[in-house]
Amino acid sequence: MNVLDKNLQVASDAEAPIASTRLRQGKLVSSVITLAHGGGGKAMRDLIDDVFINAFSNSSLNTLEDQARFQLSDLAQYGDRLAMTTDSYVIDPIFFPGGDIGKLAICGTVNDLAVGGAKPLYLTCAMIIEEGMQVSTLKQIVQSMADTAKAAGVLIVTGDTKVVERGSCDKIFINTAGIGVIKKDYQLGVHKAQAHDRILVNGYLGDHGAAILNARGDMHLSSPIESDCAPLHELIEVLLNAAPNTRFIRDATRGGIASVINEIADASKCGIEIQETATPIRNEVKGFCEILGLDPLYLANEGKLVAVVPAAETAAALAAMRAHPLGRDAADIGYVLEDGRAGRVQMQTSFGGKRIVDMLVGEQLPRIC
Amino acid sequence: MNVLDKNLQVASDAEAPIASTRLRQGKLVSSVITLAHGGGGKAMRDLIDDVFINAFSNSSLNTLEDQARFQLSDLAQYGDRLAMTTDSYVIDPIFFPGGDIGKLAICGTVNDLAVGGAKPLYLTCAMIIEEGMQVSTLKQIVQSMADTAKAAGVLIVTGDTKVVERGSCDKIFINTAGIGVIKKDYQLGVHKAQAHDRILVNGYLGDHGAAILNARGDMHLSSPIESDCAPLHELIEVLLNAAPNTRFIRDATRGGIASVINEIADASKCGIEIQETATPIRNEVKGFCEILGLDPLYLANEGKLVAVVPAAETAAALAAMRAHPLGRDAADIGYVLEDGRAGRVQMQTSFGGKRIVDMLVGEQLPRIC
Repeated sequence: MNVLDKNLQVASDAEAPIASTRLRQGKLVSSVITLAHGGGGKAMRDLIDDVFINAFSNSSLNTLEDQARFQLSDLAQYGDRLAMTTDSYVIDPIFFPGGDIGKLAICGTVNDLAVGGAKPLYLTCAMIIEEGMQVSTLKQIVQSMADTAKAAGVLIVTGDTKVVERGSCDKIFINTAGIGVIKKDYQLGVHKAQAHDRILVNGYLGDHGAAILNARGDMHLSSPIESDCAPLHELIEVLLNAAPNTRFIRDATRGGIASVINEIADASKCGIEIQETATPIRNEVKGFCEILGLDPLYLANEGKLVAVVPAAETAAALAAMRAHPLGRDAADIGYVLEDGRAGRVQMQTSFGGKRIVDMLVGEQLPRIC
Repeated sequence: MNVLDKNLQVASDAEAPIASTRLRQGKLVSSVITLAHGGGGKAMRDLIDDVFINAFSNSSLNTLEDQARFQLSDLAQYGDRLAMTTDSYVIDPIFFPGGDIGKLAICGTVNDLAVGGAKPLYLTCAMIIEEGMQVSTLKQIVQSMADTAKAAGVLIVTGDTKVVERGSCDKIFINTAGIGVIKKDYQLGVHKAQAHDRILVNGYLGDHGAAILNARGDMHLSSPIESDCAPLHELIEVLLNAAPNTRFIRDATRGGIASVINEIADASKCGIEIQETATPIRNEVKGFCEILGLDPLYLANEGKLVAVVPAAETAAALAAMRAHPLGRDAADIGYVLEDGRAGRVQMQTSFGGKRIVDMLVGEQLPRIC
């Protein structure tokens, strides 16, 4: 009678911590996440009140219904089109130099909205938590989400909490979906790159990938590389104001800038050349990549964007980005070829030769975001 | 040098299946999900093209950008308010009598939108997949999502794919977030129940919970209980047309109808009484609950709603629901007391006594949805 055993075992797992919880002002308080916290009953309600509502508190957060609601007329003040995106975050480790999974889950989705020219407005937050996680750890992650959302000017408006048995997920996975509104003027698209357009980035590449690699392993290097995890909506606003004919922007996350630039070349049916010497990569990151046989062009970023800007607006775009804290090291790293082969990306190397920069085929680092 | 070992091992894990994949029309084709499929590069692109785009194909599915876009003016034709919701699905097993995790992931989010009076329109789809899953299994789940979305009249417009190492998640977790638009006339709220309002349900309760329990264990019972997993948007439209002053609707998922009715009593500061004899529960489900010591009022449903309807509109509401295939067995199971203690739910039992029906405190069945 396995089902009974399983059931009884689950019941005892779930009840033991409940029994040891204290009642504080009529709320169940436990220091460890149990399966009961995902059960849809009182334990879950109390966890939501205690952890999520406290941290995310805002007037749009609907605590009683399973949905958040907005007046369409309020949204229309920002523009004419709604943008919608989603990402799940499964990063390992969940805390790393420069951030944690909570900060990442806000930045990643804010950036996916902002790169389309949207003002990010509202986010959902759905958590899958492994039984046994310390409530204090969860609180730390949730507080980080709240702080990052505040800094990014977005509201977390609804959510979901699931708890799975020990061993059925690795600590915590977070999904955020987001909506924003795109200004009428903005018509960005990955297929819009034209000959002579310049390829810009807003700073040093590969920091996130290298920081996670460093945090995950035990190389005991004293390198202080931190993840670049940051919300880019303000920088993008600044960039689009300075260069209103910008063709396309994308944050260079999994797959690195190599994958983004390949997607541009592919969708715009053009060739692109980038200059190795112009591409900003920290010496520490280069060193990491040399030791591990990785290519920094494929390393993930969480606060770096690739922008395709018409040549005539490049100087203004660079100046505007460099005046913003998240664009201080912005660089012009290449351009769209006039006679390039459609879909091909090449790099002028520091030795003077040229090499093909293909899309990432396999996987450099799993669970990088 | 653990980090190197780890990295090399990951590389070989990821490369082995890639090496054994075939190239079909320039696409990497593999029969097993590898970490490379979550890497953001070519393997992921090809998986997305092969599995997701094929199944979800629709004009709003933005395959080139990380966001879907809609004209706000198009949304405004349906009503005045946008509704937004999210849920992650971690059900075990992923295939069960009456459905699978894909069908559930569509129905659950469609229902969370519809219960607020919203017309469900657009869904996101974010998957966390365990390395080693058969691509054919994934395709089956994705096809089920596509079929259910089509039946529910919603479009899947953007998504995300993550792959985690073997043992870091249990097969597959799916998050869907959704948006819909609420008609100007509808003002549903959990705090709106009033004395004498009736509590209606649309059919037999607890089927989903019992079906999952049966599918998970090995009791070898021949009971043909199937999950009630279904999209309820049409039934809700029918109900709201017949009973336009309906106070509140919610789907009774985790925590069962007991938790929903407690939330109503709590938010509306009223007492509610339900009648055991009027509450539709199949004999098979009752039998299950007796054997396992479970209370069917707490069993999860995935195609059942609780509606609070003014007494004057109850007959019309019941007739309208019973004329719809998903409401054939709709029942009036109780009412809001005039002099009940705020927040208390009681049941008139079949033996003639009364008992308190509290909110679920612990967990009856983990990973039920």
